[in-house]
Amino acid sequence: VEPHETQYTERQRQVVLLMQAAQERLCSSFGQYEERAATAARRSPAAFAPSSWERPGGGGGTARVLTDGALFERAGVNVSVVTGAETPAGMARDRPAAAGQPFFATGVSLVLHPRNPYVPTFHANFRYFDVQADWWFGGGMDLTPMYGVVADAVHFHRTLRDYCGRHGWIDYQTAKRACDDYFYIKHRQEMRGIGGIFFDYLHPPDDTPQHWAQILACIEDGISAIEAAYLPIVERHMDRAYGERERGWQLYRRGRYVEFNLVYDRGTVFGLQTNGDIEAILMSLPPLARWEFRYQPAPDSPEAATVALLQPRAWADTDT
Amino acid sequence: VEPHETQYTERQRQVVLLMQAAQERLCSSFGQYEERAATAARRSPAAFAPSSWERPGGGGGTARVLTDGALFERAGVNVSVVTGAETPAGMARDRPAAAGQPFFATGVSLVLHPRNPYVPTFHANFRYFDVQADWWFGGGMDLTPMYGVVADAVHFHRTLRDYCGRHGWIDYQTAKRACDDYFYIKHRQEMRGIGGIFFDYLHPPDDTPQHWAQILACIEDGISAIEAAYLPIVERHMDRAYGERERGWQLYRRGRYVEFNLVYDRGTVFGLQTNGDIEAILMSLPPLARWEFRYQPAPDSPEAATVALLQPRAWADTDT
Repeated sequence: VEPHETQYTERQRQVVLLMQAAQERLCSSFGQYEERAATAARRSPAAFAPSSWERPGGGGGTARVLTDGALFERAGVNVSVVTGAETPAGMARDRPAAAGQPFFATGVSLVLHPRNPYVPTFHANFRYFDVQADWWFGGGMDLTPMYGVVADAVHFHRTLRDYCGRHGWIDYQTAKRACDDYFYIKHRQEMRGIGGIFFDYLHPPDDTPQHWAQILACIEDGISAIEAAYLPIVERHMDRAYGERERGWQLYRRGRYVEFNLVYDRGTVFGLQTNGDIEAILMSLPPLARWEFRYQPAPDSPEAATVALLQPRAWADTDT
Repeated sequence: VEPHETQYTERQRQVVLLMQAAQERLCSSFGQYEERAATAARRSPAAFAPSSWERPGGGGGTARVLTDGALFERAGVNVSVVTGAETPAGMARDRPAAAGQPFFATGVSLVLHPRNPYVPTFHANFRYFDVQADWWFGGGMDLTPMYGVVADAVHFHRTLRDYCGRHGWIDYQTAKRACDDYFYIKHRQEMRGIGGIFFDYLHPPDDTPQHWAQILACIEDGISAIEAAYLPIVERHMDRAYGERERGWQLYRRGRYVEFNLVYDRGTVFGLQTNGDIEAILMSLPPLARWEFRYQPAPDSPEAATVALLQPRAWADTDT
């Protein structure tokens, strides 16, 4: 998708450029960590290989996917630009007037599945949507540790609280609660991870150029916050030794990730229903996952301690 | 669940006994194959361990689960007997009059995940449902080979056609088509496996004791047909050597099994929505599964040949 295509409005062009720059920058940052891990493991690093796709209804995207790396067992950063003659009902649930109108949507989404069980799985997405004169942003990020560490969760949430506080467009407490509500695996009665923030329908009260610029800056800073929130946690655990036990537990917890994404995730379920690029949609699934019948971690084990963390908690206010 | 409990009607008691006998017999048959495989592998066999559960709304069940065996990486045979004050809407979709009325349901369901990639995954279930004076049976079985073999598919379907032909209560062609329709992974545009039969709302035109006895015999014979349809295929492949490549492909195909069960399977989705025993419901998931980004088997490979088989086909009429 070329950002200078003439059918885009100036604002659409700006957002597409922002998403593409985000993809470039994130792949470069994550790639540096992959290189460090590869050097430590005396192997060659894996790279983010581009894979473009087109959407029959209009638009398409480019996924950049790293497979079988030293740090990341799989990592994908996907940018999509999608247009359509009719807004699908599920795409603008709180905007009934948008249904049936032509729409434009673009966004970046990423899922990182580290190999080391001590390095948490990470997910983020930022997206823009417009239909006629109406437009809004949505997005957020959340962390899924297989071995929960209170200090990591506190760092992650404080970074997000600081980010929200810098702009005034996203209320951290509201976005944190929305994330807790969204990433809840109802049939397991536990959260997918330790949460993060999640917001939607972000739009200014007055649609002025100043407000547009402020919101665009807020989204851009949100993408930078991915690095500030996640990479120090990677740094802290990436060299930690692990064995069969930790690997088995990681694969078991990844089973929960699969359950959430296939049963509850709106983007996944919506994508499956609308003939999106199936591989780009299911890029979020882990490379390997495990299920076991009636497994319970031993009492007082690190695994049991992690499960105990998978409930909503005021992480940013927790003392460490 | 005790079959002699006085609140059961005589017919309910008969069906529960039939389901419990089926569980006993199937675990014994599969267990003998597990023992043979264990002897060949010079290890001890795994056993079907019972695990009972209760349903808060009424009833419960006993799952018998074999874990980490020589032949079966996981195998589960579950019998449930469930009663409730109000028939949930999803439980009797074609019987609107049943909604809200007290119901009784019992059934046996099984999923076998062999370790050897050449031995197909197998699923079956037979179930009985009554609400007031209305009652019916449903069920079926289907085969999911990771390496498709035409002769296996032909044997499987001919066995099922013969079974249907012996009774006259189930039309093979209709049940075969229903199975093809049901086990279709829409977002992949392929079937989960090579199909089988699937029927529902099996009920006689006249509710006479003779018809009841005939239908009960038909269900009992259907459970026997599990052994006739599946075990010769196990026999044919269980000693076949395999390596990393075949194992990797098996895990990849198991990813499709997970996708089907979590996204489309009515029993699973219904169970998740109604607070059923989550471990008994998700017993159908494979012990280990893999996803890969944009993977395509090499042209003319056995893996590509298998994918080509995953479309509806008149297996019983195919020459081998």
